[in-house]
This record gives sequence, C-alpha cells and structure tokens, in this order.
Amino acid sequence: MHYPEPVSKLIDSFMKLPGIGPKTAARLAFFVLSMKEDTVLEFAKALVDAKRNLSYCSICGHITDIDPCHICQDKQRDDTIICVVQDTKDVIALEKMRDYRGLYHVLHGAISPMDGIGPEDINVPPLLKRLQDERVQELILATNPTIEGEATAMYISRLVKPSGIRTTRIAHGLPVGGDLEYADEVTLSKALEGRREL
Amino acid sequence: MHYPEPVSKLIDSFMKLPGIGPKTAARLAFFVLSMKEDTVLEFAKALVDAKRNLSYCSICGHITDIDPCHICQDKQRDDTIICVVQDTKDVIALEKMRDYRGLYHVLHGAISPMDGIGPEDINVPPLLKRLQDERVQELILATNPTIEGEATAMYISRLVKPSGIRTTRIAHGLPVGGDLEYADEVTLSKALEGRREL
Repeated sequence: MHYPEPVSKLIDSFMKLPGIGPKTAARLAFFVLSMKEDTVLEFAKALVDAKRNLSYCSICGHITDIDPCHICQDKQRDDTIICVVQDTKDVIALEKMRDYRGLYHVLHGAISPMDGIGPEDINVPPLLKRLQDERVQELILATNPTIEGEATAMYISRLVKPSGIRTTRIAHGLPVGGDLEYADEVTLSKALEGRREL
Repeated sequence: MHYPEPVSKLIDSFMKLPGIGPKTAARLAFFVLSMKEDTVLEFAKALVDAKRNLSYCSICGHITDIDPCHICQDKQRDDTIICVVQDTKDVIALEKMRDYRGLYHVLHGAISPMDGIGPEDINVPPLLKRLQDERVQELILATNPTIEGEATAMYISRLVKPSGIRTTRIAHGLPVGGDLEYADEVTLSKALEGRREL
C-alpha cells in the first residue's frame, strides 16, 4: 500500500474526471486533506445535489433545477423566437452574451447518419410540437458549424419551412480577434460569401 | 443567472482546488452531471471519508487512517533506521521505490528563519524523543535539496551526532535519465563532489 485507503479512494474518484491523471488526482486529494472540513462537506453536498436535483426542462431540454426552467418561465422573454442549439453548454454560452431575449431548444446532439443518430434520437420531435404554437415566428438554428450541425440545421429548416415560420442560421465567418492569415479555407470562403454592405 | 444553482455551487467547489479555473471547473461539473449517480455518491463519500477518517500517525507523523500507521505497525520493517522527510508525499514517493525497509519521520515542513519557522514549529521535538529509543542506529536525512531542507538536515544532524547515532544525507547528483548538458552548476558540482570509485 502506498496511500492510506481513504486517500487512494479519493484519488480514484478524481481520476474518473476528464483530463485528470494519477499525479493531478494525488495533488488534488492531498489538497482536499488540507481544506477545512466545512468546505469539504460543502463540496461533497454540491456533488450529490448537482446530480440529484438537476433534470432537463420538459419544454426546452435545458438543464435546470426547476421545471419548466428559468428561461421558459420568464415572462419577459420573447416567446416568438426559439434558438435551437446542440448542447446545454451552448445555452449558457449564448446567455453570457446577454443579447438574446428569446427562448431556446436543446437538441442534445446532432443528426449523424455515420453514428446511426437520426432526428428521432435527438430532441427534434418535441421541437416540432412546440412549433405548432402559433406564437413562434422565427427559429434560429445555432447548431455547431460542423458537418453534423449543418446537416441538422438543414434538416430542421426543411421540415419547418412549409409551416411559414422563418428559419435562420447563425453567421459563419472570421471569429472576432482572429487573424485572417490563420483562418482555414472553409471559414474564409464562408466569410466572403456572407459579406455585407457597410 | 447563467447556471442553475446546483451547477454553479459545484463549479465554485471545483474552483477551490489548485490549478482549476472557471472553465475547467465548468467542464468538470458538467462531466459530473453525466456520471452515474452511484459514482457521484462514491466520490462525495470519498471526499468526506478522506477528510474525516485521516489523521497523522502519533509516532512518525505520516498521514494514516489507523494509529500508529501501517508502516510504524509493520513488524517486518527495520526499526533501527529512520528516514526523515519534510512531507507525507515524500514518504509515498520513497515507498513507491519498494527498496527502503526502515521507518520514517515526517517533519511537516523545514526550518526557515526567513519565514519564522524554527525547529519547534516542525515535527523535530518528537523525533528527538524517538531517538532516545536504543534501537535506532541510523538517521537518514532525506529533506529536500533546497536551502531550507539542507539547513534542516544540518540542524538535526548536529543535534543527533553527539548521541552516537549515525546520521546520513541522501546523495545529490544528476537525476537518472537527465542530461549533463542541462544540469545546473550546483547539481554538477555536487555530482562531482560525490563521485565514487567504480
């Protein structure tokens, strides 16, 4: 035995987290030993609470501790626009912007025939149900700019268009602060294609 | 609010760990959400257990879940040699070697007059008490090769020598696998100084 059992168990737990190898896990475990007991108890409680008290919003699929989620419940938000994203983390990224005041819909994935993931396997059918609500006027497709994300956006757009709801796709182009010299060809071509009059 | 409260609490807890910033903490927290509930409960238990069930061995000062620790209790070990180290992690490093069969003494620090740390502030007095035991024949001073570590080794050596116990210092030199070209002057000088006949 190298470590006393409680330490090695804690190291094993830390090692299950992504990007944490045996050395980092040992360092974290020893740090925990030097923390105040209250802080450690709080940490343990936060772990259990996060796992137990969170679920997906029954309307938009965002992660939440109440159902419907804060965003879906918020009467101040514009319920004529729905922004479709692949992941709950995308909602958080968009919310950080503080610019968008519409609602969201989280797909929890993207269509990927190569991996056998079809529209029924992600959160698409509930989206179509939501769109039957007359208030929705615009659907912003903010899936990732990858093959799967583009295919998903394309698929949803084709399904929705006949109903008369406006479907838009977020812009592709150079990231702000980026360098034209280092941009890849596809991004550059999309940036040119999407050019606008000044 | 960007994150539901249970998530942001978990992120805060992760951020208290060393080397974990807001982005990594968020990534770890979302990973925890995707883990099985059993694994998360185990993690939480490991945290609390490690904090609650561990203490320092009343003999050697090593971290342990039983008192005296496994090493001090082990009858197979050579109780005529004590290896003095600065930190419990040093014991673990030495134990990984599987070569040393003597006992340990953890100082929990080193003498550092600059920081106001004297011999009474670290685990030195209990060491002197242990040395009154007739069986101890050799004291290996394995403190770090830093100014504080050297000073601590020197101090203990001077205190102990009159009692007739052999005091030794671990060797300084080139680390195995290291490159002579990149070694600093002090290490090289120590390596030359400590040269041995082949």
